[in-house]
Amino acid sequence: VPGPVTVADCEERELIARIRRLLPPAPDWVLVGIGDDAAVVEPARNRVEVLTVDALVDGIHFDRAFVPPDAIGHRALAVNLSDLAAMGAAPRLALLSMALPAALPVADFDAIVGGFAALAARHRLHVVGGNLTRTPGPLTIDVTVMGTVKRRQALTRGGARPGDDVYVSGSLGSAAAGLRLLHLATTAGTENHAIGNRSASPASTVSPVVESCITRYLRPEPRLALGIHLARNKAASACMDLSDGLADGLVQMAEASGVGVIVDADALPIAAEARAVFDGHSENALAQAITAGDDYELIFTVRPRTQRRLAAAERRGGVPITRVGRCTVEPGVALRLPGGASPIDVAALPQGFRHFR
Amino acid sequence: VPGPVTVADCEERELIARIRRLLPPAPDWVLVGIGDDAAVVEPARNRVEVLTVDALVDGIHFDRAFVPPDAIGHRALAVNLSDLAAMGAAPRLALLSMALPAALPVADFDAIVGGFAALAARHRLHVVGGNLTRTPGPLTIDVTVMGTVKRRQALTRGGARPGDDVYVSGSLGSAAAGLRLLHLATTAGTENHAIGNRSASPASTVSPVVESCITRYLRPEPRLALGIHLARNKAASACMDLSDGLADGLVQMAEASGVGVIVDADALPIAAEARAVFDGHSENALAQAITAGDDYELIFTVRPRTQRRLAAAERRGGVPITRVGRCTVEPGVALRLPGGASPIDVAALPQGFRHFR
Repeated sequence: VPGPVTVADCEERELIARIRRLLPPAPDWVLVGIGDDAAVVEPARNRVEVLTVDALVDGIHFDRAFVPPDAIGHRALAVNLSDLAAMGAAPRLALLSMALPAALPVADFDAIVGGFAALAARHRLHVVGGNLTRTPGPLTIDVTVMGTVKRRQALTRGGARPGDDVYVSGSLGSAAAGLRLLHLATTAGTENHAIGNRSASPASTVSPVVESCITRYLRPEPRLALGIHLARNKAASACMDLSDGLADGLVQMAEASGVGVIVDADALPIAAEARAVFDGHSENALAQAITAGDDYELIFTVRPRTQRRLAAAERRGGVPITRVGRCTVEPGVALRLPGGASPIDVAALPQGFRHFR
Repeated sequence: VPGPVTVADCEERELIARIRRLLPPAPDWVLVGIGDDAAVVEPARNRVEVLTVDALVDGIHFDRAFVPPDAIGHRALAVNLSDLAAMGAAPRLALLSMALPAALPVADFDAIVGGFAALAARHRLHVVGGNLTRTPGPLTIDVTVMGTVKRRQALTRGGARPGDDVYVSGSLGSAAAGLRLLHLATTAGTENHAIGNRSASPASTVSPVVESCITRYLRPEPRLALGIHLARNKAASACMDLSDGLADGLVQMAEASGVGVIVDADALPIAAEARAVFDGHSENALAQAITAGDDYELIFTVRPRTQRRLAAAERRGGVPITRVGRCTVEPGVALRLPGGASPIDVAALPQGFRHFR
């Protein structure tokens, strides 16, 4: 039986043609697009440029065993857009660089690019160039994005001051729950174990909780509208995304701003669906919500005098926000647990969450 | 015996700190540099932006067995700068994304970044951001660069017209000869085979020919000054770099411009050192010079009426240029051999040089 057509059966120009078919026509500020030695673009007027690059490696940041190819493409762009959101920037362009194992089916290649292109189109980001290469190793996707923001509106990690309130967008823990469920489902295989609720259920009747968690893991939604509006009305004094989890984010923001943070565990917006999943498997939803890194929510700080601008940013941002703590003069990030026990030093958490990954 | 300290022994922030130590202070147009969710830069005034990304994968584009780590870093940037040169753009900034195998010694990591940083400094390009990740696969380096050029000066592949002369910068074949010599030296190992000349010579007395070829392979020099001056005085009607070899370049430029090209084999600036190496091993230096892809020279076309601007561009470009052929109305790329035999159809060359690599 012949296997599927793979990328190794294709000329590079054929793969590039497949990418171009999935992209919309170039906007007029793209003077030279895909197909030359480099792209040429007109910069946006009266804006500064926000640039970031992120790589996804099969086996490290996703697992092709349970992440469908269109979700890989979505995620490769989403993690970058989340960085733009954290700076308050509007997406403009991307370069897509892929290292492809020879055995990658062309259908998967198309689906990866399709997932990427669909998210790009939704956020009016244009792919102006890229690179394709073979690799003897795992599928690796490197994405560079550029966004734009008005010069004095760019948000950084370093603007928080003692007395600022700390907020989190959306909810925490769902993506970690989704990942756990995907692991269980993959391990269980045809045994069709129960996932997400305590009674066995056939795959065709996956519960809404399970589906929601898995979607949150597979297709994270970068909080662009929120980031842009927080920047535009100057509601936030500092901002970053939670790509590496809440604990890591708080420690980094506190260090960059030269403040401490005290967070109330009770106030954290842990998703009900995450509690359902982790409680069902005797996990600690709080620990997951604090350390897991796939939620791609924003954390940001707000000066007392700009609190009143928050309601508009929240409404236009399209996602609820929750006050979870306050910046302090004393350095360090402390987590206050319910019941009045001594606060936990978040930087000393043993999960290794801040290590090279 | 404990092995060397590897990147897996380091926290990500430590590796980032090592990179920062190797970089000069940021210029004032970098508003937010390494260390936030993204970099923020002020665009250059009255310029359009030229963007490109290229990846190097160990085992595909280089081999750690015989390419020293600083040369890997040099090359990862040089291949991108060569694309800027082809567009006539001056380098401005880069983002450096590395996927690191756990066993990579930290000393090699430093040397890779050092090679990259040294070339960046020479061309006044600033590293504004990047990404580090583990990989279970080979070392993979993805580099995105941005350059700038005046709007009407950007060079493309598509501007050639019938009657334009075709030029090549520098010389061809040395890099392929260098790669061959490195292969031979690696295979020979301690047997200390002769390389580059027919008598055995100890490694300590490597001939100048050998050294020159190996340097051309290991540390290609992007032809930035030439590209910039060809663009600035509008001497060239089309331009591209020879990252995939002369044959590939001619075919692509001819297609993009809608012209044919006829090239005189006799006119090709095949390096004397490449002839020495390949003749010594019964190879065909001409075939290598046409199909090998590591020279990173520029090919460009020149209208008859702008010929007189060439001397200045050549002088300021710091590299000799050679007329090798002419654009024709008839499509296709034909190579005229010495002795009057029928020209070779370059697009039909059997080397598979245009396949996915």
